[in-house]
Amino acid sequence: MLKNIDLTREVPKADYKELKGEADLKLAALQRQCKALGIPVIVVFEGWSAAGKGTLINEMILPLDPRGFSVYSTRNPTEEDMFYPFLWRFWKRTPIRGRMAIFDRSWNRRTVTDRVAGLIKGDRLRQAFDDIRSFERQLTDEGVVIVKCFLHISKSEQKRRFDALQSSPATAWRVTKEDLRQHDQYREYLAATEDMLTETDADYAPWTIVEAHDRRFATLKIFNTVIDALERKVASVERKSEAPALPSPEPASASALFSTTALDRVDLSISLTPEEYAARLKKAQAALRELEHEIYLRRIPVVIAYEGWDAAGKGGNIRRLTQNLDPRGYEVVPVAAPNDIEKTHHYLWRFWAQMPKDGHITIFDRSWYGRVLVERVEGFCTEAQWRRAYREINGMEQHLAHYGAVVLKFWLHIDPDEQLRRFREREGMIHKQWKMTDEDWRNREKIDQYREAVEEMLHRTSTPYAPWTIVESNCKRYARVKVLETVCKAIRKRIG
Amino acid sequence: MLKNIDLTREVPKADYKELKGEADLKLAALQRQCKALGIPVIVVFEGWSAAGKGTLINEMILPLDPRGFSVYSTRNPTEEDMFYPFLWRFWKRTPIRGRMAIFDRSWNRRTVTDRVAGLIKGDRLRQAFDDIRSFERQLTDEGVVIVKCFLHISKSEQKRRFDALQSSPATAWRVTKEDLRQHDQYREYLAATEDMLTETDADYAPWTIVEAHDRRFATLKIFNTVIDALERKVASVERKSEAPALPSPEPASASALFSTTALDRVDLSISLTPEEYAARLKKAQAALRELEHEIYLRRIPVVIAYEGWDAAGKGGNIRRLTQNLDPRGYEVVPVAAPNDIEKTHHYLWRFWAQMPKDGHITIFDRSWYGRVLVERVEGFCTEAQWRRAYREINGMEQHLAHYGAVVLKFWLHIDPDEQLRRFREREGMIHKQWKMTDEDWRNREKIDQYREAVEEMLHRTSTPYAPWTIVESNCKRYARVKVLETVCKAIRKRIG
Repeated sequence: MLKNIDLTREVPKADYKELKGEADLKLAALQRQCKALGIPVIVVFEGWSAAGKGTLINEMILPLDPRGFSVYSTRNPTEEDMFYPFLWRFWKRTPIRGRMAIFDRSWNRRTVTDRVAGLIKGDRLRQAFDDIRSFERQLTDEGVVIVKCFLHISKSEQKRRFDALQSSPATAWRVTKEDLRQHDQYREYLAATEDMLTETDADYAPWTIVEAHDRRFATLKIFNTVIDALERKVASVERKSEAPALPSPEPASASALFSTTALDRVDLSISLTPEEYAARLKKAQAALRELEHEIYLRRIPVVIAYEGWDAAGKGGNIRRLTQNLDPRGYEVVPVAAPNDIEKTHHYLWRFWAQMPKDGHITIFDRSWYGRVLVERVEGFCTEAQWRRAYREINGMEQHLAHYGAVVLKFWLHIDPDEQLRRFREREGMIHKQWKMTDEDWRNREKIDQYREAVEEMLHRTSTPYAPWTIVESNCKRYARVKVLETVCKAIRKRIG
Repeated sequence: MLKNIDLTREVPKADYKELKGEADLKLAALQRQCKALGIPVIVVFEGWSAAGKGTLINEMILPLDPRGFSVYSTRNPTEEDMFYPFLWRFWKRTPIRGRMAIFDRSWNRRTVTDRVAGLIKGDRLRQAFDDIRSFERQLTDEGVVIVKCFLHISKSEQKRRFDALQSSPATAWRVTKEDLRQHDQYREYLAATEDMLTETDADYAPWTIVEAHDRRFATLKIFNTVIDALERKVASVERKSEAPALPSPEPASASALFSTTALDRVDLSISLTPEEYAARLKKAQAALRELEHEIYLRRIPVVIAYEGWDAAGKGGNIRRLTQNLDPRGYEVVPVAAPNDIEKTHHYLWRFWAQMPKDGHITIFDRSWYGRVLVERVEGFCTEAQWRRAYREINGMEQHLAHYGAVVLKFWLHIDPDEQLRRFREREGMIHKQWKMTDEDWRNREKIDQYREAVEEMLHRTSTPYAPWTIVESNCKRYARVKVLETVCKAIRKRIG
């Protein structure tokens, strides 16, 4: 979940004041509503040392009624804590109904800090994840709202902040040995954190990654995340206590401002000359042909899913991927709307039926991600269903990975201008007119909603065992080579 | 979950015909309702070889419309199956809406047969449990009903059946080498099965243990289990599609006939003479005193929960347990109805606050099991809440066990006559009158409901990491010695 996070995001000072003022009022009002409705709230702050947890917690509590919350700072367990299971000290601090508990670091320390320090691994690490999931689920099942924020900064930003603190005797003491150790082992911490985020991200207690280079942006994103979670909970509690059932509140459009923006940073100007293309394509295709034999011998299945904007070039890209392959070793599965039989099954069933067997490659042209894209945007499934789907899809891909499969997902990205150009071009060419439907134009009108869905999908389902690759596709040549080379690299890595 | 299963249960031939006739009609009607409402149903049959899975599946499908179900027999994976993740072949067979899929053995084979054969262990075993839980949850979240039955017979009964089959050439072929290997390794299979049942028992897909010595009993219990699950699902689907919300249907009182009966078999005539008592009590108390020091040195926490009927003698029993202990090493926590502060917390919070620290013993006089006893019977929590609580409580106890704690639970059992005798005696003795309240008499009136709740509690929360011990308590002397000796034994085992 930390891949493709744009740490340069910021909010201008001019906008900040107004937005913050509004957020303050909203948060204070929601605190009162939660108190009245007896909703307990837990807000967890995790993140790098010097990411600004202390400052941001201070910002958050300022508008709150001080009688309604507690802040708990989780450092090394005390001697007493060490006498109990690691969740004990957090159970003791779970909030009563209507109260808010804010944790500066939390139970996730166990699976990150302790893991990097070599204190926990293997079976015990998996037990800790089980214990954490069970704990969070026990709380949310009984009505607790859990908001989890991870404050993210880069290694160089962390260095800059440590240097600034150390340059003055007044603040130098704030940089501890543990902080410096974390800095030296940034890579190890990053890998452990990524694992922790993946293992404990759930519809009932989702993670929000907060881009924390700019304090104003981070503040607003945290406010927005807490407000969004509380608004949804308040609405659901009120709906249950009132009859008749009310429809969901209007979608939280404001939250789109703070959703992740992996797509914004994609450099679509990137391209290949025809000569470069010809050379690299040939080389990668030959390599993949050899790897195809290798995975057959080693009985490794490979699952490749293509998603992307209409007219992003999926078809042509897939053709280049398979052009040189032995046709007995792969299959391309085009995915359209489910047919009548498929509709009567679980939505993942039809994909299971098409998974590759050992030693084979299956390429899905569109995939199970339709659940969180078209079905979400068009309202073909309920909000609860698509929110749950991230966990379900991760579960399915993890099962494949447990088995030893290589699982790769490509998002073919183009900008709206390029899309329009291609639509027009298609309409102008008789042999391509069949490719254009009214639906393509309709989808284009909903581009903002699709973009929000794509961002959340890339964010919640990019896992160590099944990563997303965003493919810059304004230049089709570049896109084709990138996919081919990425597939080769992943297979080589799996073979070891 | 296989402890304390009474395999001698049977249904007389005379009763069977009528009960079976009713069940046939009900099941057929429910199949039609499920079809009309589009409810997909999965029924899983697991159990020992020769437990009668085939016969019982045949019984079950007879009243069904044959156009509405499929039976899948799961033997060794085929060569093709071996080319896919182990859940693949089951995904393919998940039923469409309105249809029923009946599995003769299933995905649980992976964590039992394969495990005993040494094909899977450690991390990969835990991954398989994760995969299975995720699979079942994905299905039930989308509306599938999953009914899981385990057909249980004893080792000697299995031998008897194998011998009978082998004695005739017409049936000898039915006893395979694999069957005989299972018989030889009955103990290993039993342990692996117990683990599998514990790890995969959940409110969304619970296990039912079917006592399978008597075919008539087993048939009716299976019918009853399926009928109960379908009735509840149909009611919940109909409730959602209608407004206003309806209350739950009347409790399925028929199901009580087939609930587990660990308590029926308890031999309450067991007793100790005063002399035996004095000798064994003294010895066990001395041993426990030594073990108390040992666990202190080794920093092992011990959690002991007492539950039992009113007047079963919990207080006196606890006094004998602690009589000889160093008071700095243990604590007794009496548990009554939650106070106002406790009520505003999660129901498990107050118990976490009282858990022993390393090297200490905490004895709970009544416990978190109130959730599935008094709160269930008196309606202080919803049905969804107490059904979920088995998983939550197992999760809490597993967290304690992961940490290294010894967790023991005692059910002090007396029969209603003995209880009445003690109530009368208390009323007759001035210094014991305070012990009697109107509530005791009220509880006694609800004895059947309590008994059903106790049985289900003993069944669903007796785990390898936190077992229940039923203590025959008509003779208080015996009960005291049994608890003491059980505690000593468990601590010794933990110390190893």
